[in-house]
Amino acid sequence: MNAEIVAVGSEMLTPFRQDTNSLSITEHLNALGVVVDFKTIVGDKRQHLVDAARIALRRADIIVFMGGLGPTEDDLTREAVADALGIELHRDADLLTGLYTRFASRRMTMTENNKKQADVLAGAEILDNKNGTAPGQWLDTEYHGHRKIILLLPGPPAELRPLFHDVCVPRLRAILPERHIATRLLKMAMIGESAADARLAPIYTQYDDVETTILSQGGEIQLHLISAKPTKAEAQARVNELAGKIEDEMDDFIYSSHGESLEQIVLYYLDMRNETVSVAESCTGGLIAQRLTSISGSSRAFLGGAVVYSNALKVDFAGVPEELLDDYGAVSSQVAEALAEGIRRRTRSSIGVGVTGIAGPGGGTEEKPVGLVYIAVADGKSTSVVERRFFGDRERIRRFASQQALDLIRRKLM
Amino acid sequence: MNAEIVAVGSEMLTPFRQDTNSLSITEHLNALGVVVDFKTIVGDKRQHLVDAARIALRRADIIVFMGGLGPTEDDLTREAVADALGIELHRDADLLTGLYTRFASRRMTMTENNKKQADVLAGAEILDNKNGTAPGQWLDTEYHGHRKIILLLPGPPAELRPLFHDVCVPRLRAILPERHIATRLLKMAMIGESAADARLAPIYTQYDDVETTILSQGGEIQLHLISAKPTKAEAQARVNELAGKIEDEMDDFIYSSHGESLEQIVLYYLDMRNETVSVAESCTGGLIAQRLTSISGSSRAFLGGAVVYSNALKVDFAGVPEELLDDYGAVSSQVAEALAEGIRRRTRSSIGVGVTGIAGPGGGTEEKPVGLVYIAVADGKSTSVVERRFFGDRERIRRFASQQALDLIRRKLM
Repeated sequence: MNAEIVAVGSEMLTPFRQDTNSLSITEHLNALGVVVDFKTIVGDKRQHLVDAARIALRRADIIVFMGGLGPTEDDLTREAVADALGIELHRDADLLTGLYTRFASRRMTMTENNKKQADVLAGAEILDNKNGTAPGQWLDTEYHGHRKIILLLPGPPAELRPLFHDVCVPRLRAILPERHIATRLLKMAMIGESAADARLAPIYTQYDDVETTILSQGGEIQLHLISAKPTKAEAQARVNELAGKIEDEMDDFIYSSHGESLEQIVLYYLDMRNETVSVAESCTGGLIAQRLTSISGSSRAFLGGAVVYSNALKVDFAGVPEELLDDYGAVSSQVAEALAEGIRRRTRSSIGVGVTGIAGPGGGTEEKPVGLVYIAVADGKSTSVVERRFFGDRERIRRFASQQALDLIRRKLM
Repeated sequence: MNAEIVAVGSEMLTPFRQDTNSLSITEHLNALGVVVDFKTIVGDKRQHLVDAARIALRRADIIVFMGGLGPTEDDLTREAVADALGIELHRDADLLTGLYTRFASRRMTMTENNKKQADVLAGAEILDNKNGTAPGQWLDTEYHGHRKIILLLPGPPAELRPLFHDVCVPRLRAILPERHIATRLLKMAMIGESAADARLAPIYTQYDDVETTILSQGGEIQLHLISAKPTKAEAQARVNELAGKIEDEMDDFIYSSHGESLEQIVLYYLDMRNETVSVAESCTGGLIAQRLTSISGSSRAFLGGAVVYSNALKVDFAGVPEELLDDYGAVSSQVAEALAEGIRRRTRSSIGVGVTGIAGPGGGTEEKPVGLVYIAVADGKSTSVVERRFFGDRERIRRFASQQALDLIRRKLM
């Protein structure tokens, strides 16, 4: 069976807002063995909606409408789907009572408009929406001799997601052929997508029965592996076998073998080895600290750090000798080392990290161009420093520098 | 005239990737007076593409196809659009020569597959793609008696955006009725969407000729105002008049009257008043420093700061008296004040900011629940501190705390 997702709402046809609900819906449908063949985004115009519904009925077996179930005049999904199918809407007495009760308990008067949230497609079942007033609807019907599953779901993600996951997925599973899928997500840092693919394609192309998707973003490569088999164990064995071969090939480029983020992995290693880390950041300006502290429980291993934008603070907070700044300049391997060693000493952490560079777009010279970054990691026994040249805008350069720094901490701990 | 945007590519029907190109295309189309009525996302299957093209031809005047113009077997947009229109593709000799030259200059052999990038819809004009091998195509034709403008554009954003902006927009402007639009973007911090809307709806609903869109995200409300008039001056006058009334009503809630970010505004005020700022962050963990330093030129006013996750570092880097930590706990208004005053003193900035709170999900108590945050701003003369309770996950609480801190700096400088 294939599916079409129809996102309803004029706001998603503006430059400001976009459908994102369909990503998680797609993930669930794929896990059930359903391929999403089309996504349509349509505004709150009745005729457009009716036409979009007719088109979807012709080309998909499962049609998921999201949005347009509220009480306003612009909420037209119920009416449009009824038109497209040539069926009636009837006002459900229980739903209507529920709406009255809900309004009464909040001491509000229910306006006429709100009643349409009790309108149900003839033959449809009501899907209880625990997080909002508009219920979902499930219609299992025939259209020109073909079975169609039609879902009407509310648009707000906080209502849609639980309703789809808790109510629709079990219902779909009950009518779809049994299927067991296993997935693995491997992640790599600081390697290019084409370089990784050149090494990996000869391996994963031998696994016809494992779907492999490679995505690259912000200095990270994700390898999504999915396999479907008659039993869960077979599917799991198959993705694990491929994952093992990929890990053998890419070795320590792979930092995550079950989807963890780089921050999580670094904190996990620190915890495991009973080590602590602190950072002295210049060009990344707090980004590394922010990424580490975005993880709950990071306070066990992350003591803190300094954002040392000015030279005075490099001296003050990280004990960088002024001569180094004078002799080599703030963007130099010497200052990166001194930042790492100094912040380690000052915070009494076991590992210290120093980052200095030119994030741009201004401030570059021929000798020290925009994108030049020095990253040092000190552990008391030795200090390693790397020089990198990143390309792109300020955001990308800072992102890659933070990615490189976290990866260096990880390698130090391995 | 209305438009449909058709994004072509099976990867956009996975849970991992999504069309984002259509947002900027929509912005340009709207500015030309063209409404986007539909967006379709379709995979690399020929029959699906042909059907999607036929549907778009029936319901839109301008149809923008993005993607599927590369050299691989999966790149089928040219063929599918030709099928849908019932016209031929012809291989353009000049394009073919260009491809040969391009490959030769890189000392690569051109494979057979690549030649299809020289295939052009009968009657179409070629749009030079400066950033890739596949050119765009522009076809101004009739379909069942209606004029249709059909654009085939490459999918990669770095190729699509300049091609659309530099080549397609001027061509569209030449054939569309002259139209002058003016836009304004106002932003507000730390006020709820419904509270803002309740105060603003009576104002903006009086301006039928200005389209007002309210968006809320991450502690920020955006008000997009757009007006189209026979002259640019009339359109500008109209949005400015409405913007003025909105500014009068919302007063100092509005931090940006021309779309600037909160970080930019804070740095702008600091520069203007010749002041400098430093931050001592506990629960925000570097997020405020990172946001300020994301702006180029921030080093003029942002000296740096400390991420003081551990109590030891609160004492060491921001001079918080140990008694305060013992008596009131790290999450208290007293410690927030001491952080702000201490970091100001230590960095010799004119303004110091201190943030301490419980970002969760762990660490909350009945007395000090998750989401409780204290934010202090010290300027040497006085120190103000606010207590806030934010809701949501760790990311949202940290985001709102950073938003509140930046807004307090702004208000201090006003």
